Amino acid sequence: MNIRIGILGYGNLGRGVECAVRQNPDMELKAVFTRRDPQNVEILTDSARVISVSEIKEWKDRIDVLILCGGSATDLPKQTPEYAEMFHVVDSFDTHARIPEHFASVDASARAAGKVAVISAGWDPGMFSLNRMYASAILPEGKDYTFWGRGVSQGHSDAIRRVPGVKDGKQYTIPVESALEAVRNGENPELTARQKHIRECYVVLEDGADAAKVEEEIRTMPDYFSDYDTTVHFISQEELKRDHSGIPHGGFVLRSGVTGWEKEHGHLIEYRLKLDSNPEFTSSILTAYARAAYRLALEGQSGCKTVFDIAPAYLSPRSGEELRKTML
Amino acid sequence: MNIRIGILGYGNLGRGVECAVRQNPDMELKAVFTRRDPQNVEILTDSARVISVSEIKEWKDRIDVLILCGGSATDLPKQTPEYAEMFHVVDSFDTHARIPEHFASVDASARAAGKVAVISAGWDPGMFSLNRMYASAILPEGKDYTFWGRGVSQGHSDAIRRVPGVKDGKQYTIPVESALEAVRNGENPELTARQKHIRECYVVLEDGADAAKVEEEIRTMPDYFSDYDTTVHFISQEELKRDHSGIPHGGFVLRSGVTGWEKEHGHLIEYRLKLDSNPEFTSSILTAYARAAYRLALEGQSGCKTVFDIAPAYLSPRSGEELRKTML
Repeated sequence: MNIRIGILGYGNLGRGVECAVRQNPDMELKAVFTRRDPQNVEILTDSARVISVSEIKEWKDRIDVLILCGGSATDLPKQTPEYAEMFHVVDSFDTHARIPEHFASVDASARAAGKVAVISAGWDPGMFSLNRMYASAILPEGKDYTFWGRGVSQGHSDAIRRVPGVKDGKQYTIPVESALEAVRNGENPELTARQKHIRECYVVLEDGADAAKVEEEIRTMPDYFSDYDTTVHFISQEELKRDHSGIPHGGFVLRSGVTGWEKEHGHLIEYRLKLDSNPEFTSSILTAYARAAYRLALEGQSGCKTVFDIAPAYLSPRSGEELRKTML
Repeated sequence: MNIRIGILGYGNLGRGVECAVRQNPDMELKAVFTRRDPQNVEILTDSARVISVSEIKEWKDRIDVLILCGGSATDLPKQTPEYAEMFHVVDSFDTHARIPEHFASVDASARAAGKVAVISAGWDPGMFSLNRMYASAILPEGKDYTFWGRGVSQGHSDAIRRVPGVKDGKQYTIPVESALEAVRNGENPELTARQKHIRECYVVLEDGADAAKVEEEIRTMPDYFSDYDTTVHFISQEELKRDHSGIPHGGFVLRSGVTGWEKEHGHLIEYRLKLDSNPEFTSSILTAYARAAYRLALEGQSGCKTVFDIAPAYLSPRSGEELRKTML
């Protein structure tokens, strides 16, 4: 029998999960739960239903894993523990500093209900965390680096759009190539924020706005831009729509470490993602971890898990035997 | 209490494990077991002993994990099942095609003895396999690529040295940069052996040998060189020693895949290793998996495991709480 999937929240992430489920033949999307009027939500999967979240309890026995596609600021801290009482759940909670408390609240709820809950299963946190962890376990003496981009930062794009005179805008975070190269060469550089990332802004001005003033205001904005080399390009709304409506992202996790009795040998471990669609890639990870949650539950496990706690084989539809034969 | 480690076999790999154990404060090297006369084996660790392998049984209760540092051709197929009857064991068995049978024989022995045995825990098989598996679980529709190098191939270096007129030699396997770039650009190329790797040979001739004839014989050697663009450099024994006595290696695992309802978004996952010392890096992985074997055993598990079966957290000396706080 296929793994029966539910999606809570139908934004970019929810739609991405819907697409990912279709790419996994052992899964079936049963329902999308929404806070909106279900009449007004159109999904892509003919065989799945759109249901008001107020009726979600009735789906307790019709769904195996509920994939939570809300935001980390306010949705997930409430939703993940709440729905872990009814379903095995997976989320991509990404507020790094609040992971310990999120884990604790989800764990309590999932344990009490005998459910499996996987949190923070995206790419950072998620795949990047895994790579940081494997690399530091293999090379205990070394230095970690994470670079993000080239990609759209939602937070920084929002910040630009709050500047008076700005009609619309997008911000790209870009790793500094020379810093990446220094890390790859084993130079173990100490890098400031400015030395690691460039910020590139594409801005549409309101009619009559003062470009020089807007540029100055963006470049000197504390926290967001003042610590970086920031370039501002003024473009038309049409250009923004044509050239910058995608949501690409990615980045690099590197560990540079030493081995040998005299620490005479250097090694570099590098993990890189280059993503056309940030939300769809995150959705694909969520979907793979939904399979893992389902399988762990079949084994009688319960409680909150992260990517660190789940053996890789649980993510794959292939059997252990097949994996050893084809992928080891 | 520290994890008590034993090493079987004291070549490059065994010495590498000795160095790695010193970098892991929760471990202690107790003994190196050797087939040679222990009097003639000098190790680096003052506090550890060198013991004849004939006495290994007496160490049954003095060692937690035995790390097997023999070769895959003849040593490990015999040693891993044999010593899994006495110890938790870890090996880096790397004959891909024979992994299923090795797994079966080790599993039977380890299960019967209630021991944990981890096999094929190097970088390929090992870390490369893990990355192939994670990437294909996340992006079910896509294409895998593995490139090796730049690094020394022991098998190809041996093949060179068997050519009449060759006194000594080393062979480097080098990925073709343009092929790598095509993969990174999402072109999903179909690549022949020749299009993926270059073979570079450094050869010391016997006195009076015919260089042109040696070069021709190397370049046309079936299986080893004839399917590749091979360059042959003639150098002196001194130059070989000075410039080519290291054992660097590494490589790239890439997966290029698509997501979206119309498969409209492309993604690239790339994992790269750049290693000054192939055996020391493999040793570092073996050592991290020795920790995992020990912990799995503490939980009452037994039988044969591969990197696919072991949750990442078992490799790290840090607690789950600490990992979530610092690395997730």
